[in-house]
Amino acid sequence: MPPCTRHAIFISDRTGLTAEGMGDALLNQFDNIEFKRLTYPFIDTPEKAERVVAEVNKITDGCNLRPIIFTSIVSEDIRHIIRNCNGLHLSFFDAFINKLEEELGTQAVLQVGRTHGIQNTERYDARMEAVNFSLNHDDGVSAKDLADADVILMGVSRSGKTPTCLYLALQYGIRAANYPLTPDDLDSTDLPRMVKPFKSKIFGLTIDPARLHHIRTERRPNSQYASPENCRREVHEAESMFRQHGIPHTSTTHKSVEELAAGIMLACKLQRRT
Amino acid sequence: MPPCTRHAIFISDRTGLTAEGMGDALLNQFDNIEFKRLTYPFIDTPEKAERVVAEVNKITDGCNLRPIIFTSIVSEDIRHIIRNCNGLHLSFFDAFINKLEEELGTQAVLQVGRTHGIQNTERYDARMEAVNFSLNHDDGVSAKDLADADVILMGVSRSGKTPTCLYLALQYGIRAANYPLTPDDLDSTDLPRMVKPFKSKIFGLTIDPARLHHIRTERRPNSQYASPENCRREVHEAESMFRQHGIPHTSTTHKSVEELAAGIMLACKLQRRT
Repeated sequence: MPPCTRHAIFISDRTGLTAEGMGDALLNQFDNIEFKRLTYPFIDTPEKAERVVAEVNKITDGCNLRPIIFTSIVSEDIRHIIRNCNGLHLSFFDAFINKLEEELGTQAVLQVGRTHGIQNTERYDARMEAVNFSLNHDDGVSAKDLADADVILMGVSRSGKTPTCLYLALQYGIRAANYPLTPDDLDSTDLPRMVKPFKSKIFGLTIDPARLHHIRTERRPNSQYASPENCRREVHEAESMFRQHGIPHTSTTHKSVEELAAGIMLACKLQRRT
Repeated sequence: MPPCTRHAIFISDRTGLTAEGMGDALLNQFDNIEFKRLTYPFIDTPEKAERVVAEVNKITDGCNLRPIIFTSIVSEDIRHIIRNCNGLHLSFFDAFINKLEEELGTQAVLQVGRTHGIQNTERYDARMEAVNFSLNHDDGVSAKDLADADVILMGVSRSGKTPTCLYLALQYGIRAANYPLTPDDLDSTDLPRMVKPFKSKIFGLTIDPARLHHIRTERRPNSQYASPENCRREVHEAESMFRQHGIPHTSTTHKSVEELAAGIMLACKLQRRT
């Protein structure tokens, strides 16, 4: 048999995000091995499960390395069918549901659709409200916006505020306002007048000047705005401001939006609204 | 001991999202039990782990129901400390890492920060580009935007396009354009002229008219725009258009953004760019 890339297969009765999250966390610990990823979401009937089994076995048939199969499937019947996929099965329902039933002294209801579904419209509304909050303020923020915000992300242009605000809204239902530090703001060491009353809600974002230069160059090549000197100066002044006023802050350079958002939740003691 | 609410505790060396995802999927199967949730992210040193143990044991000490503790922790040393929390421990690293090592014939590197971190800036750039794509087009879309899009979400105003576009961008790095069906568009049964050349990339979103009426009323109370008759008519006409042109579509009414995004990835055969 010719050498082949090992498959990592994620099978879920819903979105697949939980199976992928768990699988990625495990597979990332084997950095010398390459995996070919395949996700099968919404596998919630025996018929769909049979089709997945046929497809997975066909795809991996010619390979001398059997696939790793991560499953997040509530129904015992469907998990039973999926076990016919040739491969190493890692199912967290199989691993944990019996322990939980024993501990809680009650049977699991084993109903599909209880994760990442709309449990109630209130939860959904909190998220949508937070997304709208974030979008409405992206171009410029008012005093009322700042008063209504759960947290205010402050940083120079292109330091990563917008995606972080949006992720806070979508994942946690948090209303995050976005305050861009302009060159005018940076001329002073004082906090910008507008955000001063809300100091306790401010979280600072900073970024490596070289990375900022790279990002800004994509948008406005050869501009003063994107020049290495200007990026260095703005970042330096923003960081000085954060330190001087005791504003908690972090660098976005080597962090994903997930990490940034979780770090801000922790630093600002925010409670998820979803 | 007085009766108390059982705690569900999520402890992670990174964001906590994977532990929460797995824990929620399991706990949602016990719908008659209420849990008090607590998340401890970034527990990546023995000192932090000791503090968590002290805090968890203090919080749950007076309770006759021991907590359920979901952990996503790479380091065996830190997991060892966390085991001193009194409670039922469900650790997917403990459950699966040995099986994986055996299957892969190699040792896990057991390094923190390999999940939800920036593995490479290319991946990060794909996401940011997709977020910017989505934001730049939210107010109005050009022919070039539509040509560049991976997928075009089409639906009446407030049917859920914007949050879904943003989630596709943040979670999957997908460039999703947003085409709002205006009353003018809906006067014709033909596809809007602008999107016609890109028919194969269109995915339709629809919504229950009563829910749409509720959402629109929040924005413009007592308007023609928000009236039940108008909502019913717009939704009816949009759905007719989808059916007539064989546009795949789904209702957003009872779905979360995670479900919508995963469903669109599947229906449009999109590959994640992250």
